[in-house]
Amino acid sequence: MRIVAALGGNALLKRGEPLDAGVQRENIRKAAVALAPLAEGYELVLSHGNGPQVGLLALQAASCTGSEPYPLDILGAETEGMIGYMIEQELRNLLPPEIPVATILTMVEVDASDPAFKNPEKYVGPVYTKKQADKTAQKRGWSFRQDGDAWRRVVPSPEPVRIFEIKPLRWLIEKGAIVICTGGGGIPVAASGEGRYSGIEAVIDKDLASGLLAADLSADFFIMATDVKGVYLNWRESNEELIRETTPEFLREHRFPPGSMGPKVEAACRFVESTGKTAAIGSLEEINDIAAGKAGTIVRREG
Amino acid sequence: MRIVAALGGNALLKRGEPLDAGVQRENIRKAAVALAPLAEGYELVLSHGNGPQVGLLALQAASCTGSEPYPLDILGAETEGMIGYMIEQELRNLLPPEIPVATILTMVEVDASDPAFKNPEKYVGPVYTKKQADKTAQKRGWSFRQDGDAWRRVVPSPEPVRIFEIKPLRWLIEKGAIVICTGGGGIPVAASGEGRYSGIEAVIDKDLASGLLAADLSADFFIMATDVKGVYLNWRESNEELIRETTPEFLREHRFPPGSMGPKVEAACRFVESTGKTAAIGSLEEINDIAAGKAGTIVRREG
Repeated sequence: MRIVAALGGNALLKRGEPLDAGVQRENIRKAAVALAPLAEGYELVLSHGNGPQVGLLALQAASCTGSEPYPLDILGAETEGMIGYMIEQELRNLLPPEIPVATILTMVEVDASDPAFKNPEKYVGPVYTKKQADKTAQKRGWSFRQDGDAWRRVVPSPEPVRIFEIKPLRWLIEKGAIVICTGGGGIPVAASGEGRYSGIEAVIDKDLASGLLAADLSADFFIMATDVKGVYLNWRESNEELIRETTPEFLREHRFPPGSMGPKVEAACRFVESTGKTAAIGSLEEINDIAAGKAGTIVRREG
Repeated sequence: MRIVAALGGNALLKRGEPLDAGVQRENIRKAAVALAPLAEGYELVLSHGNGPQVGLLALQAASCTGSEPYPLDILGAETEGMIGYMIEQELRNLLPPEIPVATILTMVEVDASDPAFKNPEKYVGPVYTKKQADKTAQKRGWSFRQDGDAWRRVVPSPEPVRIFEIKPLRWLIEKGAIVICTGGGGIPVAASGEGRYSGIEAVIDKDLASGLLAADLSADFFIMATDVKGVYLNWRESNEELIRETTPEFLREHRFPPGSMGPKVEAACRFVESTGKTAAIGSLEEINDIAAGKAGTIVRREG
């Protein structure tokens, strides 16, 4: 069985935790402990979020006198290196040497005319006070939106259209390697004329890109691992209820919070609808039970 | 014929040029134009330097209030993402779609007891005045050394011992992919007990690591591309002379500047001595002539 598992930013970095390397590594070490049995039992492809990290790197570049802030495609590539390395190393430390682990940089094509570019709404980076946000918006030309009781930078989040490295990815999986790729939803690139492709200022939704990855790799199971047990009805209300097994039809009849569970539900529905295979949303700690169908929210076609 | 080509930092970024993304991309675009014919004619594996970039990222992290500077292994991983992405994209834009291009994160094992850790001497990052260097050394605990008439940060540069991802690299090359890897000499990791490996504060020499890569991949030709036409006798003296064809024995009888031509000559000698194959040092602009044996300094065993 071939599994594509997308590790949510919240699964790798709890809200409000500092972005120090040590904190990230400790969280990734815990994630690797949960993932290692999966890596030994299945063909496993891992993707991961990068929201907090890409925001920090943007902030660092901005606060570094003498250098222009790097665009989001390059910052995304940096986070694929940084986070991919830590996941690869921690997983490598837990797996027998005969199981190779490899991290592949992943470029994902988006459409430069995607409406998202007119309406930035993907949160990246740390939280700001209203005052800090206004000041930074003015200084950098960044867009900010309220996120809970704080403010965060928002960037365009266009639809993923195509994964450039799909052939090399397939070759490595077929050879038995555990592959880490499509970090942060992939490095956003768009056609720039004359058959050329160039990076573009955006952050692709990690779950939608991972679902595309899972479909293109003919995965049997697409799992989105986060910090909650699954998809809930009436989330955080007295009558909240975990959905254990469901269908795209049912999920599409309900609304889920944009920017958190919404994209995960959409990614699960798209994958199941387009492939007829199974998707799941659940807690990283329970990922082995999720793979066995015993935990999380399992999404299948009717019947 | 299988070629491993190591792109020198000076080939991708001229001394004194700003590290803006646009400048780097423009240089990498030029490099890709030189490399594309090679990629169409041979099995090609590319590595690259990261000295200026890793130094900038360290500086950015350091100057960013609220976050601890990241260690050099993580910064190295970031540069493998950033530089690897730009090389992959520019090369991708010049190659027919049937030739896949892939960038693989590369961890390289070093020995934690390597004497280099007691004697940091590898330059990274921008140039400082003496005053700035002293101030930063005090603030960060970094080591500095004079480089020409300026000062730069120096870090340990231990010997590369083993490349972790060699199997996946070989698989991709055998499938016909152009592979970018071992950027910046690879991400430095060392055994940390109980069969675990952890990142370590160092920068591995890119040429020595690339030579190890070329040997492990059974490359027929190991080319180090830089910004000079080759190895010179009496460099920058009235009687300076370009060496066109030579042997490890001859090169070992002479001394070359440490930190620039020295490691390249050492890497060439090691590769030729250990494999019996050919190495070359020369200008990136002339890399196609170098591959044809018509330019650069060609290093072979006697006879």
